[in-house]
This record gives sequence, C-alpha cells and structure tokens, in this order.
Amino acid sequence: MNILLVYAHPEPKSLNGSLKNFSVKRLEDAGHVVRVSDLYAMKWKASLDADDSMDRRSDMRFDPALDSKRAFETGRQSEDIALEQDKLRWADAVILQFPLWWFSMPAILKGWVERVYAYGFAYGVGEHSDARWGDRYGEGTMAGKRAMLIVTAGGWESHYSPRGINGPMDDVLFPIQHGILYYPGFDVLPPFVIYRTSRIDEAGFSRIRDALGQRLDDLWNTTPIPFRPQNGGAYDIPQLTLRPEVAPDQVGFAAHTG
Amino acid sequence: MNILLVYAHPEPKSLNGSLKNFSVKRLEDAGHVVRVSDLYAMKWKASLDADDSMDRRSDMRFDPALDSKRAFETGRQSEDIALEQDKLRWADAVILQFPLWWFSMPAILKGWVERVYAYGFAYGVGEHSDARWGDRYGEGTMAGKRAMLIVTAGGWESHYSPRGINGPMDDVLFPIQHGILYYPGFDVLPPFVIYRTSRIDEAGFSRIRDALGQRLDDLWNTTPIPFRPQNGGAYDIPQLTLRPEVAPDQVGFAAHTG
Repeated sequence: MNILLVYAHPEPKSLNGSLKNFSVKRLEDAGHVVRVSDLYAMKWKASLDADDSMDRRSDMRFDPALDSKRAFETGRQSEDIALEQDKLRWADAVILQFPLWWFSMPAILKGWVERVYAYGFAYGVGEHSDARWGDRYGEGTMAGKRAMLIVTAGGWESHYSPRGINGPMDDVLFPIQHGILYYPGFDVLPPFVIYRTSRIDEAGFSRIRDALGQRLDDLWNTTPIPFRPQNGGAYDIPQLTLRPEVAPDQVGFAAHTG
Repeated sequence: MNILLVYAHPEPKSLNGSLKNFSVKRLEDAGHVVRVSDLYAMKWKASLDADDSMDRRSDMRFDPALDSKRAFETGRQSEDIALEQDKLRWADAVILQFPLWWFSMPAILKGWVERVYAYGFAYGVGEHSDARWGDRYGEGTMAGKRAMLIVTAGGWESHYSPRGINGPMDDVLFPIQHGILYYPGFDVLPPFVIYRTSRIDEAGFSRIRDALGQRLDDLWNTTPIPFRPQNGGAYDIPQLTLRPEVAPDQVGFAAHTG
C-alpha cells in the first residue's frame, strides 16, 4: 500500500522526529511504500494567499474560495500545492503527525490543509440539491482512503479525560478528525496520542514504540471511527441537523458518531 | 480604553476587511485607542521555529518550549514577537477577527498565537504545587483584560447548531476561547459570528454592522462566558478533572462553563 506521512515538527532530534523515523521504517519493513511530507524541512509556505495561483493579479480582489476553484480547475495552482494533491491521490492511507500546540495542529500543518485542500478537490465537490449537499462527510475525493493522527501532548492524560480541564481528547481532535479528515471522505482511524511528553524515559519510549508499531501493523484492519455520513439519511438536508430519531437526546460532537 | 484588533484575512476588499474598518472607526469614535495587527499586511511569519530566538544555534537541538522560555527570559526573542507581546500588555481588550477555515483560525493567526504566546508569558506562568497548577485558565498575564472573537463562516447557522453536522459553534470555538484566550487569563466575551457569508446583500450587511456596533459599544459591560477558573476549587489538582460535585453528570466542553 501507499502511505503518505505528513509531519510537522521543527526539530529532527525530537520525540516526534524519532517516532516519524520509526513509523517510516516499520511501514517499509511491512512492504508498504512511504512518502513523507516533512513540512518544516520543506519550508512549507503556511499562509494561504493570492500567490497560491499562478494567475495572481495584484489589481484584482482576491477571493480565497473562488480563486482556489479557478486555479484548481485550470491547472494554475502553485506547484507546491499540486504536488501535495498528487501525493494525496497516490496514497491509500494518510497519517498526520504533529505536536498538539494550543489545542490544535501547528500553524505550518494548518496551512498545508488550507492550501492543499482546494475548492473542487477537498470541498465544493459534488452536486448540491434538496437530497444531497455535496460529496462531503464520508464522500469526496478521499473516499476509500484511510487516515490517522499521531499526536503528542505535553499535558497529562487526565487533563484530556471526559471531565478533564482541557476537554476530552476526542472533542479536541473532532475539528481535525471530522472537519478535516472525514469531510473530504477519509475513513478516520482512532488517533494515536502520547501524553506528558517531557517525562518519557527509555522504558516509556520503548512502550510507546511498541504500541505505535502495533497500530501501524493494524492500519488496514482497525475499525474506523463511525462518523455519520452526511448523505446517508441521518441528516435533514439542507439544514444538516440530525433527524429527530437519530441520537434523539444528544447534542454536540459526540452525536455525530454512530 | 486600549484595544488591540488582531486581524487575519488576505483581502482588504472583503467582508472581513469592511468589518475590520468599521470596528476600528466605531471604537475610535467612542474614544478608545485602537491598534491593529493586520497579519497578512504585516507578512507575519506563521511557523514557529528556531529563528524565533536571536540566539539560535544551528548545531543545537531546538526545543519549542525551552528555547521560547530562554529567549523570553533573556530578552532575546525575535523582535516581531516582542512587539506583539508589548501590544498585548498595552491592551485592555483584544479582539481576534478571522474567517473560520477548516473549523479553526487561519494558519497565519495560529502562528501568531504559537509564536507570541511564549513560555513565561502565556504559559509556564506561576507556581506548580499540590494546590495550584500554574497561573492559567482564569489567571495569568492577561488577567483583567477582555477578549472577543469576530468570526465569519461560509456555512449556515443550522450547520453549527446543537445538532448541526459541523458541531455547535460554541464547541468549535472552545479550543480558541477556552484554550487560547481563557488559558492566559482573558475574560472571554461571547463571540460575534456571521454565517453564510457568500449570501450577504446590502440589507444583510447593514444589519450585521448594526449588531457588531452594538457589541463593540457593550465591550465593557457584556458578561463574559463563565468558564471555571482552574485554581478556584472546581478541579482536583494535579489531575485537573472536575470534582465529583461540580456539574456531576456532565462530560465534555460544556462542563467547563458554570
């Protein structure tokens, strides 16, 4: 299988760097083909702007969505964007690996999402009608591919527990797992999360490596998070609210997992 | 009062640009002093890296937290970071204005947070003991200051309702309002959110301006979101989970609002 690892940490000699190297080797040893987008090493341009189209005109009003649509349709996207889209098309599975900074992904990775996820590629895909609201949330360009997060956090696991002060990790990651991965069609596997990263000793690192290796070995037979497909009957369209009979008394992120 | 508006949109001739100009004028007309950090116009460096310290050594391992701590303590931070920290110290209120891209803030603004929120300035502040876990979540450098989000979203309001497919807007914004603003001590006002931005006509824009103007007029007498202070007795320390008697049957983000 083809696996794309999108990796966002500035220091190769870090826990993240070690785990990235470990993952590449483990996957290659299992016979997979691995490509790594090492965003810091690539000096990835983080900020979405008019330069993302080769047809940029400084006298024209820049519209982030419509200019992205035009550049994508006409093959006039900035080359770094087109290359990452090719990697996504090529991949059978995509892993995003990053440290959790301020309860989300690092800016450089957010900027990879914003720029690579073009209109017509990751959003604005498919028909909009009374019965469908585009190919998204379970359908879209990434349908049939798997995705998984590898996340490191400085805080304790209890701080991210159901009643922990930072909010439950599932909810902290929902905008990424549901909003960035499930949205264009990925099947999203449960995340691999490492807590309290400043206190990991040799034995701890060895346990983490074993657990991560197991998750990588199981990439093709782990059950994805059962998010509800948008066009599968659970939602009223176009309001896109859960139908009354679905998870009847639930509100919030958890209601979108079946 | 002194107000800092941190603004992240690439196009001045946009809805966001118009609202930013409107807000500055409204606040100045009311006698406030306003400074704007227009991140795109400033070509703000989005990616946190070793260059954020003037003492960068390419032969040394870069540690995002410890290098930030050292540079902050010794006054050796990159100048753009120190200037933004000065603005935050100066401000009585801070407004973050941005379009919601992939269910979070644009990368350029995320990178402002990551770089300006230095160790010792916005985190790693205060004593850690059995009774306290740092000055954060209601305490810290920003204590006594107010903060508010102005957010534009392409989707419909129903898509962000309690049972809407994107998740409730309060939950989507929790990592920012609680995790980025309340964390270093801001009192966080309810957000001003504009939906379905591609379908706003003249009359709609006029209504939005009026509503936003009212919110700006009320900046000093709007009741903040009642997030629970970390060190106020609601949490067991150091686990930082809600004590059993607090919101006894609740889990998730909403449990942290009293």
